[in-house]
Amino acid sequence: MDSDTPNNGELRCHANETSDNSGKEIIHKGVLIEDTFAEAFDGWVASILITASKRELAEIAALSAVGYGTSIIGCGAEAGIADYVIPQNSPDGRPGVTILLVHPDKKHLKEQVVERIAECILTAPTTAVFNGIPRAQETIPIKIHYFGDGFEYQTKVGDRNVWAIPVMGGEFIIEEEIGIVKGVAGGNFFIMGNSQMSALAAAQIAVEAVLSLDETICSFPGGVVSSGSKVGSLKYKFMKATTNHFFCPTLKGRISGSLVPEGERAIYEIVVDGTSYDVVKQAMHDGIHAACNIDGIIKISAGNYNGKLGPHKFYLRDIL
Amino acid sequence: MDSDTPNNGELRCHANETSDNSGKEIIHKGVLIEDTFAEAFDGWVASILITASKRELAEIAALSAVGYGTSIIGCGAEAGIADYVIPQNSPDGRPGVTILLVHPDKKHLKEQVVERIAECILTAPTTAVFNGIPRAQETIPIKIHYFGDGFEYQTKVGDRNVWAIPVMGGEFIIEEEIGIVKGVAGGNFFIMGNSQMSALAAAQIAVEAVLSLDETICSFPGGVVSSGSKVGSLKYKFMKATTNHFFCPTLKGRISGSLVPEGERAIYEIVVDGTSYDVVKQAMHDGIHAACNIDGIIKISAGNYNGKLGPHKFYLRDIL
Amino acid sequence: MDSDTPNNGELRCHANETSDNSGKEIIHKGVLIEDTFAEAFDGWVASILITASKRELAEIAALSAVGYGTSIIGCGAEAGIADYVIPQNSPDGRPGVTILLVHPDKKHLKEQVVERIAECILTAPTTAVFNGIPRAQETIPIKIHYFGDGFEYQTKVGDRNVWAIPVMGGEFIIEEEIGIVKGVAGGNFFIMGNSQMSALAAAQIAVEAVLSLDETICSFPGGVVSSGSKVGSLKYKFMKATTNHFFCPTLKGRISGSLVPEGERAIYEIVVDGTSYDVVKQAMHDGIHAACNIDGIIKISAGNYNGKLGPHKFYLRDIL
Amino acid sequence: MDSDTPNNGELRCHANETSDNSGKEIIHKGVLIEDTFAEAFDGWVASILITASKRELAEIAALSAVGYGTSIIGCGAEAGIADYVIPQNSPDGRPGVTILLVHPDKKHLKEQVVERIAECILTAPTTAVFNGIPRAQETIPIKIHYFGDGFEYQTKVGDRNVWAIPVMGGEFIIEEEIGIVKGVAGGNFFIMGNSQMSALAAAQIAVEAVLSLDETICSFPGGVVSSGSKVGSLKYKFMKATTNHFFCPTLKGRISGSLVPEGERAIYEIVVDGTSYDVVKQAMHDGIHAACNIDGIIKISAGNYNGKLGPHKFYLRDIL
Repeated sequence: MDSDTPNNGELRCHANETSDNSGKEIIHKGVLIEDTFAEAFDGWVASILITASKRELAEIAALSAVGYGTSIIGCGAEAGIADYVIPQNSPDGRPGVTILLVHPDKKHLKEQVVERIAECILTAPTTAVFNGIPRAQETIPIKIHYFGDGFEYQTKVGDRNVWAIPVMGGEFIIEEEIGIVKGVAGGNFFIMGNSQMSALAAAQIAVEAVLSLDETICSFPGGVVSSGSKVGSLKYKFMKATTNHFFCPTLKGRISGSLVPEGERAIYEIVVDGTSYDVVKQAMHDGIHAACNIDGIIKISAGNYNGKLGPHKFYLRDIL
Repeated sequence: MDSDTPNNGELRCHANETSDNSGKEIIHKGVLIEDTFAEAFDGWVASILITASKRELAEIAALSAVGYGTSIIGCGAEAGIADYVIPQNSPDGRPGVTILLVHPDKKHLKEQVVERIAECILTAPTTAVFNGIPRAQETIPIKIHYFGDGFEYQTKVGDRNVWAIPVMGGEFIIEEEIGIVKGVAGGNFFIMGNSQMSALAAAQIAVEAVLSLDETICSFPGGVVSSGSKVGSLKYKFMKATTNHFFCPTLKGRISGSLVPEGERAIYEIVVDGTSYDVVKQAMHDGIHAACNIDGIIKISAGNYNGKLGPHKFYLRDIL
Repeated sequence: MDSDTPNNGELRCHANETSDNSGKEIIHKGVLIEDTFAEAFDGWVASILITASKRELAEIAALSAVGYGTSIIGCGAEAGIADYVIPQNSPDGRPGVTILLVHPDKKHLKEQVVERIAECILTAPTTAVFNGIPRAQETIPIKIHYFGDGFEYQTKVGDRNVWAIPVMGGEFIIEEEIGIVKGVAGGNFFIMGNSQMSALAAAQIAVEAVLSLDETICSFPGGVVSSGSKVGSLKYKFMKATTNHFFCPTLKGRISGSLVPEGERAIYEIVVDGTSYDVVKQAMHDGIHAACNIDGIIKISAGNYNGKLGPHKFYLRDIL
Repeated sequence: MDSDTPNNGELRCHANETSDNSGKEIIHKGVLIEDTFAEAFDGWVASILITASKRELAEIAALSAVGYGTSIIGCGAEAGIADYVIPQNSPDGRPGVTILLVHPDKKHLKEQVVERIAECILTAPTTAVFNGIPRAQETIPIKIHYFGDGFEYQTKVGDRNVWAIPVMGGEFIIEEEIGIVKGVAGGNFFIMGNSQMSALAAAQIAVEAVLSLDETICSFPGGVVSSGSKVGSLKYKFMKATTNHFFCPTLKGRISGSLVPEGERAIYEIVVDGTSYDVVKQAMHDGIHAACNIDGIIKISAGNYNGKLGPHKFYLRDIL
């Protein structure tokens, strides 16, 4: 077997499952929507609302707290900015940014929530922390107030029970019961363009549409994945994941079985985590529709892995 | 002993060491420069230059890669953006952002370099990675190219030896020998203001001055620390670090021994890591000078810990 | 009469009118709300929705189009960004930015709309222009399509009738009937702080609250006015407007009749234009409430000019 | 003659002059550099350095002051941000932004300098104004200090003679002698791409390279022109300028004489103004080199108009 040719097992893994598809092609605004589905997995989602005396300061703390948080494969959590809260709607009347942290394991998620608040938000100037999802029936208790060394005290901001912790910059206000919900992670779609910049522009507008929803994040840098992977490796047996070579444009002429459409020069993947199946589905709908408004998009597809990734399926034909 | 009163050991810890100080007060632009010093420690510093087809894309990848990287106490590394490289000066003619990752342990640093590149830069659209400090005599080899699953190949960008790895978005270019140097971490100074916003404005201009140097970072969110800490705790024996209560403005009237000057409402700390003692010293000089240009700054001080933090001392009187 | 002492006429002009005030002081979150009113004038308001293939591109065009548009005293129009439209809500599914242009004279406003679109939006990459206020019963027709030199053609984007004009970058899409409504300009309030940076931070959060409404703008740079003026001059008879010396903190000890409260170091003015009296009133309400959340604010006031500026009054006691 | 066919006079106008060209094609990084030249004109250039207590505030004032300043055909001046000054290099130790205003007529330029400072910088919080080009042998005096109504006074910032004008926000500092030099306006090049997004990405990186130089601006929105024009009109005799139809990609199949290369989908023009012929030449060099680093660029050209625009020529073959 030629090293450029994947074995059958690999092929089943990369090629999109088609057995229960209708096989009906959809064309939306001139873009082929492949009849396939995205596969996603269960994840606990914690929502943290960060406010500050200026939007920029809340955003800086948020970016620090969600950094190094693209994929649970290599990071402590999947994390991203989910929402911008205007002063009028914020518990303390100041601008806010809501972030989500996502992990399948609840205990692991709690550790990440505590650590990222302690390192990246408590340390940031003028910030306060609130439960970002008050409707959540479950919360994780965090004990940041011990940092106050006994000088901290309990008080209220509106109807929120908070701790006020004396710090060098003033007082750090924190609502310590952070809401968590069972959400869905790994919702995804592929955008295939006739130039790298067309595909990227479509990906960026798709991310904006997805993030316009209040309870979704795109945890990868700028929301766009450039290096989609397959499970395992053809050549390096010690690698758990390697480049998804069937979807690599520069390999189209070099391998058999390439899934790169004619004329396509780049594929970007959008990955969506959210607080529910429905919000991820809506996000995929809105993102795909937005992407198709950019000139030069050839095809939309999605990634699935024979159920190895998770139980949730999002059929593109149902989403559109 | 009242619980609000620290024991002597604590007091020695927080109060700035004065035995070998000259005791000569310096007034700079109306601001009192305390005759004390900052204490800092040794750290290995890796420098990664990220380029992309647009500055914004390089910056997005950089922010993801340096996120959750404020302090080695709770993060895998201290990390930050050190420099912006114009297309004219970049190895591939595209805009670049240089980040530094810092950790005292070389092996641990290597792991962080590999993981943060793999999760946050390889995944980001159009990025390439180069050694950010070509003069470094020591490098850490990273083997990201295995991700290419055998389809990767070696090539050159100018005089740099790089790998080209096929990815869905095109090709990921990486110079795998990342330079490291012995640097200094934890250089710091305190900015004390007559209002929270004055202190913050001075801190922000100080950070800009520090970051104008090419080989320094301020790893905290926005470069500013709001919640400086002391070692241990008066009340909670299980806490390794708690709020530096002697410097908390809201506690001035409640504790004995407060080090908060009259009329001061907020203290922000600037922490600087850099590739050498000299560049950190220059950064402290430039940052303090910049801060003193903001109206409402009362005093500049610095943090030291009886040598428990590290061997390096930066006397403010020498710096100014 | 000492030149530092204004004559009575001037005094009547600067001092806030008090005859029909209730004299009842309001304290909101510890901030004194002066019992006075803002005076505002009638203005025609044109609303232009700019879309682009990326939010950043729409915003760049918008910033160019609203630039040099702070006050009708010295600029062709008062102009600013009013709203950000998400792809899901935009006529062409792309990100949008809505700007308002304001002038009392309808013909003059039309000229400004045409010129600013032609110079700043038509020239910007990937932009399209739509009527930003479809409910408006009156529109101003603009004939940008002549730029197409006969190669332009009429088409539809959704239910909007547009022109498609061939340009070097592709096609420029424009809906040429731009809606205008009778609005209100010059709504305002003063924020007085105990430090320059406190007043500024409160002003910035107030601007964010005002701009969170969809049909208001703050035409000054960053939405904040640092140099409020009075009509005429004490010393230079050729000057139509000079510094509002009664409100200058640095003159408090030098002049008689200073209106600067004790302990106050800076006053920033927020000026609001909007599509109706009610939206400007709401904006003032939201802005003042937001400002009072910042530590160090002493007093809120407003500017009025004996009816010389215009017929509309916004009493702070009614607004709060 | 068919209305889609330009008359000879027009053709001579649009087609690039070739008589004194060598006819030698240059290929740079796979991109065809057309053997033509850019035509530019003389302009007076005023340089204003704006500082503020925070970079963002200086930039906000700068953006307001340079807005509605793309082309002298329809705007009061051509204007743009030329340089960012770090605190260490700024006259008052605060972050600075240098803007250029350009106009062929010195008196008209002076009016623009005065008006834009008065409306957009004096009004902006914490700003100060300095001569941005101290080496200039000629200055235009501006009398903003009359705004102080006699309360203003003269003082020094370092070695700069300035006025301090009391304003509501504190004091406005201004050096009233603004340097002007004879510069060059209208330097330009065309970037032709195989997709709109490729051409745009190349244009954006070119703008970044151009603006990395200290004394150049790109006055159009984001530095990129999407709607290049020709003088006059084929069809609408009342139009002074209309779309440059020979370079419109969507018209390639519809007109005779199209200058759009095969496979090209979008052309963006970069226009450069600067303080001298040499700096504009350097900017064109750096911009073209940067643009050629983006995948999908087919050709670089430039605009010239039989000397009707101005006396300066920049031959691409000399620049490269």
